[in-house]
Amino acid sequence: MNEHKPVILITNDDGINAPGIKALVDAVRDLGQVIVVAPDSPQSGMGHAITIGDPLRLNKVNVFEGIDSWECSGTPADCVKLARDKILHRKPDLCLSGINHGANHSINVIYSGTMSAAMEAAIEGVPSIGLSLMDYRFDADFTIAKTVANDLAKRMLVGGLPPHILLNVNIPNTTASEFKGMKICRQAYAKWAEEFEHRTDPRGKDYYWMTGKFINMDTGTGTDAEALKDGYASIVPIKIDFTDTVTKAWLETEWKF
Amino acid sequence: MNEHKPVILITNDDGINAPGIKALVDAVRDLGQVIVVAPDSPQSGMGHAITIGDPLRLNKVNVFEGIDSWECSGTPADCVKLARDKILHRKPDLCLSGINHGANHSINVIYSGTMSAAMEAAIEGVPSIGLSLMDYRFDADFTIAKTVANDLAKRMLVGGLPPHILLNVNIPNTTASEFKGMKICRQAYAKWAEEFEHRTDPRGKDYYWMTGKFINMDTGTGTDAEALKDGYASIVPIKIDFTDTVTKAWLETEWKF
Repeated sequence: MNEHKPVILITNDDGINAPGIKALVDAVRDLGQVIVVAPDSPQSGMGHAITIGDPLRLNKVNVFEGIDSWECSGTPADCVKLARDKILHRKPDLCLSGINHGANHSINVIYSGTMSAAMEAAIEGVPSIGLSLMDYRFDADFTIAKTVANDLAKRMLVGGLPPHILLNVNIPNTTASEFKGMKICRQAYAKWAEEFEHRTDPRGKDYYWMTGKFINMDTGTGTDAEALKDGYASIVPIKIDFTDTVTKAWLETEWKF
Repeated sequence: MNEHKPVILITNDDGINAPGIKALVDAVRDLGQVIVVAPDSPQSGMGHAITIGDPLRLNKVNVFEGIDSWECSGTPADCVKLARDKILHRKPDLCLSGINHGANHSINVIYSGTMSAAMEAAIEGVPSIGLSLMDYRFDADFTIAKTVANDLAKRMLVGGLPPHILLNVNIPNTTASEFKGMKICRQAYAKWAEEFEHRTDPRGKDYYWMTGKFINMDTGTGTDAEALKDGYASIVPIKIDFTDTVTKAWLETEWKF
């Protein structure tokens, strides 16, 4: 590793061959010593899964010109753990995850492999950002997302956030002229309301496909869902403490043991 | 469904044949109409994974005497979604997940399939509890955990918590005489510090096993990790909003876009 440049670890959940991770590498390759450790296959919807009962594989690959890269058989969270322990032998200075093909705002953070990698880094004390573009297509246009990634990476490298706080960044699928810029937001109470489509296989057995639609149940303002709808990139600072202090205080008074 | 009794949905991540889920069924079977929908195989470490790219299977099974039960090919979160949409056709009155063989306190909430099922229910507006015993063994003693589960299920059924708030409950591995009772806590900043053991397979290729040790980095008091160490069952009320409002306010002032 070049000791004069910050070490930037890049990973994702769409797999090392997704256009989104290439866009992210290109967006920040001039800002430091970029290292890629990413899943060898798509991992969307893996949440914060880690691999406990199976061994992990890690293979050096030549995917991005001039960038040391490894593909890993595990989850996005596994990639971050393995990168630190077996490749870098130190904490990176910044971890970037994405750019995801598809949104990860609102409550969907908890289903997101992209965000799980960024959260894993934050738990370790590494400044980190998860980035997602609101366009599921393979040939999505990452032009605006790359600009956002470069801007935020620079801000994080010069100081940035308190320990263990990370950013969840979503970029709207707009043209450059429609794009309104970046906005600091709170997480919306909005989610996919899943339904399951029932089918019968050729042997007469039932099976189900997950389907559903996105519902915003948040009636307040200042949310990421709202900012995205208005054409802004949303930036939500996230902490990994799930304690509800309000309910905690109430329970301490009301529930006698 | 019997309309006079509350409907209690039970799931887990160790799989429908784990002794922990049987203990949970037995602990609350007298409190309502108990329905079990649980993974057909162990899902530990699955985090909040959901199944997007594969169809799901759901088979009625006869595992618990007098209890309608289904095994599902998906994750714990999938089980909760499918139970509501395809079996109950309504929200259950209470969702209980566990009793997990092994602890899920501190930051480990995000890796836990047990907690992901309970969180999924809470997102849907269903009162829910995730329960874990600090004993990984198959033949763990669930006696104390059953008493805790019964007590808390009764409290939840008579009113309980604000919408979308759930409980993360961990039970220490103690004897009845050592057990100190239940305590309301906050989530500790404590985690598994993973390391990977490097091995070489018979064909000369590298592979890695995840390993590590538990480290409590939390210097404050009132945490779940502390309560468990002192012989209490820890109860942490959890909300599914990751926004760090302190950092949000700071960023709104400091980061100009």
